[in-house]
Amino acid sequence: MNQETKNVQYLINGKASLGLSALDRGLSYGDGVFRTLLVKAGVPQHWYLQYQKLAEDCQALNISCPNEDVLLKDIQTLFDGKLDAVAKIIVTRGESARGYGYPADIRANRVVIKSQTPAYPGINQTHGVNLHLCQLRLGLQPKLAGVKHLNRLENVLARTEWNDVNIADGLLLDTNGNVIECTMSNVFARFGKDLITPSLEQCGVAGTARALIIKSAAKLNLVAKIETISLDKLMQADEIIICNSLLGAWQAVSLNGQQWAKKNLDSQLREMLLN
Amino acid sequence: MNQETKNVQYLINGKASLGLSALDRGLSYGDGVFRTLLVKAGVPQHWYLQYQKLAEDCQALNISCPNEDVLLKDIQTLFDGKLDAVAKIIVTRGESARGYGYPADIRANRVVIKSQTPAYPGINQTHGVNLHLCQLRLGLQPKLAGVKHLNRLENVLARTEWNDVNIADGLLLDTNGNVIECTMSNVFARFGKDLITPSLEQCGVAGTARALIIKSAAKLNLVAKIETISLDKLMQADEIIICNSLLGAWQAVSLNGQQWAKKNLDSQLREMLLN
Repeated sequence: MNQETKNVQYLINGKASLGLSALDRGLSYGDGVFRTLLVKAGVPQHWYLQYQKLAEDCQALNISCPNEDVLLKDIQTLFDGKLDAVAKIIVTRGESARGYGYPADIRANRVVIKSQTPAYPGINQTHGVNLHLCQLRLGLQPKLAGVKHLNRLENVLARTEWNDVNIADGLLLDTNGNVIECTMSNVFARFGKDLITPSLEQCGVAGTARALIIKSAAKLNLVAKIETISLDKLMQADEIIICNSLLGAWQAVSLNGQQWAKKNLDSQLREMLLN
Repeated sequence: MNQETKNVQYLINGKASLGLSALDRGLSYGDGVFRTLLVKAGVPQHWYLQYQKLAEDCQALNISCPNEDVLLKDIQTLFDGKLDAVAKIIVTRGESARGYGYPADIRANRVVIKSQTPAYPGINQTHGVNLHLCQLRLGLQPKLAGVKHLNRLENVLARTEWNDVNIADGLLLDTNGNVIECTMSNVFARFGKDLITPSLEQCGVAGTARALIIKSAAKLNLVAKIETISLDKLMQADEIIICNSLLGAWQAVSLNGQQWAKKNLDSQLREMLLN
């Protein structure tokens, strides 16, 4: 374990453990799902939505989802009641012998990991962020689209495309050239009163911050829409917002050689997402 | 650990271990590669090709591949010199904190797993096998195509499409409708003297049995070719062969409502692959 990971702690199936069986299908095949969320003073944020999405993603892969109270107990055990931290919950299909098939009675494994809240630069909130336009195009797979599963090599490869610390995330298009998401966040594009987020029917991950923004757009006098968006159309947006459960929302003020003036919507969305 | 997995043993980085760190990126993101091979009386079969492919796959993902002698020592430690068994070698990028990026000095982890040689029905060799035509279509991802990486949810989902024990494997097409492979094997289609295997430039796994057949086709008076093959064209083949390192080669005698007479090529290929 290196310096970077030494303060990270985890429970496997509720117990402090040195590790997961090497026969776990999460390792063998990425056969599982995960969530990442903020825990503030011991309280997992937007828990209802987070658990609902975890359960939906498990169902999409026919994995038995741990009960809500079991996961809440894991969080209570692992997290301090005073400090803020990040919880990552992984649910795998469980252990099996070699081969893609699995027995009907396979038992899911759960991992809950505590790590430090990321220290994002304050300038990301005050001045907005720069996005890299990724060369890697997301493959289309409707049977997995939207699910936050453990097959994330596309994200890993896309993330290697830039080293510049002034770039906050990379925008991903699909193989048809449509805008899908960023490597670690979802995307919204505002056109007047319309707040459009890409359709994730073919690929991408439908995050809970995205769901919250869609649900709450009307309160900000905006009309949330889910649509197919080409890169050309995105570049014409009045503003572009990226979001996830840890960063809240940031405005993208630079992408593919174009600049946007900093506005105020990201701040309103952060207020809703992080407080 | 259930009944199915109780006789399986493994080494993690050369040591008997209870498990892999939950921070390993093989679990988090499927960020790693693997190989499956026969070990006969302690000797890994077609080792030169297996190690070469492992090294190529590591390089494709910029993962540092363990030295050959380190892996051979693991196999020597784990495998009995008398019995035949299956080795699965997993190499992950290593452990890191949360996030798709990783430090330049990250250290790869290796897992070597020993399990029993599968007891395939003898009829598969004598009479050929039935294939299911999978509904799931493989997404296109040229940056990962050919690599035997740990993102295998497409295979896992495709494998759930049938329960019939008389079906040996499922044929996978890509989103363009071209034939790619089966869930656990590569595919060849013979047309006269031409032995065609699908191009894997857009998706699929390029197995070592496939590589061996391509290399050795001339000895059987056949001309190996790598081409794009539509399902319509495949259905017109004189015969269809599936192959991997464990089963060798089987002729597919039934697919999508069509039957083929059993011939002798699969037997010749098995002789080359398994002996």
